Amino acid sequence: MTAKKKESALEELKGVTTPNPVQKIKIKRHKFPSTAKFVEEIKKGTISYVSRAITLVESTHPKHREQASALIEACLAIPSTTIRVGITGVPGVGKSTFIESFGTFATAQGKKVAVLAIDPSSSLQRGSILGDKTRMERLVNNPNAFIRPSPAGDSLGGVARKTREAISICEAAGYDFIIIETVGVGQSETAVHAMVDFFLLLKLAGSGDELQGIKRGIIEMADAIVINKADGENTKAAKLAKVEFNRALHLYPLKESKWVPSVTLCSALHETGIDTVWKKIEEYSSLTKENGYFMQHREKQNLYWLKETIREGLHTRFYQNPAVKQEFGVLEAKIKAHQISPFQAAQQLLDLFHKKSES
Amino acid sequence: MTAKKKESALEELKGVTTPNPVQKIKIKRHKFPSTAKFVEEIKKGTISYVSRAITLVESTHPKHREQASALIEACLAIPSTTIRVGITGVPGVGKSTFIESFGTFATAQGKKVAVLAIDPSSSLQRGSILGDKTRMERLVNNPNAFIRPSPAGDSLGGVARKTREAISICEAAGYDFIIIETVGVGQSETAVHAMVDFFLLLKLAGSGDELQGIKRGIIEMADAIVINKADGENTKAAKLAKVEFNRALHLYPLKESKWVPSVTLCSALHETGIDTVWKKIEEYSSLTKENGYFMQHREKQNLYWLKETIREGLHTRFYQNPAVKQEFGVLEAKIKAHQISPFQAAQQLLDLFHKKSES
Repeated sequence: MTAKKKESALEELKGVTTPNPVQKIKIKRHKFPSTAKFVEEIKKGTISYVSRAITLVESTHPKHREQASALIEACLAIPSTTIRVGITGVPGVGKSTFIESFGTFATAQGKKVAVLAIDPSSSLQRGSILGDKTRMERLVNNPNAFIRPSPAGDSLGGVARKTREAISICEAAGYDFIIIETVGVGQSETAVHAMVDFFLLLKLAGSGDELQGIKRGIIEMADAIVINKADGENTKAAKLAKVEFNRALHLYPLKESKWVPSVTLCSALHETGIDTVWKKIEEYSSLTKENGYFMQHREKQNLYWLKETIREGLHTRFYQNPAVKQEFGVLEAKIKAHQISPFQAAQQLLDLFHKKSES
Repeated sequence: MTAKKKESALEELKGVTTPNPVQKIKIKRHKFPSTAKFVEEIKKGTISYVSRAITLVESTHPKHREQASALIEACLAIPSTTIRVGITGVPGVGKSTFIESFGTFATAQGKKVAVLAIDPSSSLQRGSILGDKTRMERLVNNPNAFIRPSPAGDSLGGVARKTREAISICEAAGYDFIIIETVGVGQSETAVHAMVDFFLLLKLAGSGDELQGIKRGIIEMADAIVINKADGENTKAAKLAKVEFNRALHLYPLKESKWVPSVTLCSALHETGIDTVWKKIEEYSSLTKENGYFMQHREKQNLYWLKETIREGLHTRFYQNPAVKQEFGVLEAKIKAHQISPFQAAQQLLDLFHKKSES
């Protein structure tokens, strides 16, 4: 099978064709089943319905949004015991291979695994991550696994909302593990961190300057750092990297979860070290469920998304206001020319916005 | 002279009594000179006018705010060559002693020094930092130095705005160095970092776990880390700390300014190492003025404050909206009970806010 054929076979398997936002006016609108039918099939774990339900929550059409709201509400009411695992790492670190190995391992333990993604950079050409499904061939063909590429969207907030709602659908469908992958463009790691229980940073050994290039805050977010490709000639470098990252981890205070993150080695390709990661996640889950952090954390995350969505909503409305748009550049120039302070300029814009919204 | 007497003598020297916000209704309102008179005296560097001008920009009275706007506008138009230096460090690190030594050193080089502060925790009892002026006795009595405690305020944004406007006044008054001190409560370090050219982190050696307790992001912000109290028995520990901090600095990528931060030792008490800090600031200033970063950075900071003030303004108006206030708790409870997603709850609140603002 060629890569191209595989790709199209996978497209079929996924059972969805999300509308391309560029062409959305031209293409035929999806007809969706009733919410009751959706709920019935999702509860049974019927993959095609899970897939279409995610397509529904990804739609920006007001009618679809309305049905999506009802569906999410129904899904939220279905109890679940899912663990949400976030995975980040730079391109080339082997995320797909790792997810393939980890997912296969998990299904072998009798678990159902869903893989979702957040990649705000893929706004227009969707599937820039999780796109290369040829690397996840086994998982794609596994009846206990479900893989869904990153949704399209204009803003990280929008993409995050869609992914967060896809999580609720997958949870209602009985997936035990939900893996959220991100390439870490912009704030996407923060977004993923804010919707998972366990956050895993995948790193590569051997380049010698691993810590140098790391994005700020990522190490603090990590519940585990997994050094991938720790095999063959790389083994020595991987062990050195482990020491270096362990040292870096010790620079941070004890986490609120009381969980002590650690650095482990793995070779996703040779499937070594996957069991250690699995065990770490289980230990984390036990610890935080026992000390109450697990649910507290999820509640905090919900509050975060509530506030974050409000923040983004206010921001969008302000900066899209025609009067604000017109005046912003004028005042910006005045600030530059030392004719007004940024505080006074802000006040003028806020007054303008307030006035225009009232009229 | 007792500490108390000194304190009141210093109050006199400062020439101002900022209204205590708790009693502001009872006390007599300030009568301020005309804006033209203010500008004339500020240009001459008359300390009592500088001081009263800052009191004016600190006032929240609409009439005062109006005059303050005009005054700031006039001050912004006066050219200045100030260097703004931010200083942070935990209580006990010796900030006051350091500022006293540094300020005295600077005035000895023929420079005029103003010391301002940001401390959002001092909302009600102002002066919790820079309050203990007994430690800055020499500087307080130095005609080329001006010291002003942290303004009172309800929000960091408000306090920051007042301090930022005080900077503009001091610059118009011809101060060469403006030192902004913060104890680093909440986001105040970010606020200070966003209004200074050079950011200095003051640390203490000898406790052995200096890096452990450090707030995230602070090291990345620092243009210099100065280890204070590197004297007597502390010298060895200070040297060890220097090595440790140097290592930590190397974890971060090259700054946009192209400035390479370094760790230096000093004893503010014995006034050793102050000249090194002075030299570092001069080097920084030369480098960044030459490569263009200095002005670019200030422009970016202005844009930051413009956007930040807008963000805070929108936030305040949203959360103080009576309809939003009433519904927020209801929806929060529904999220907790898994009856609604945080995204849908946010949308409902935004719609409510929009509707109420329009009616």
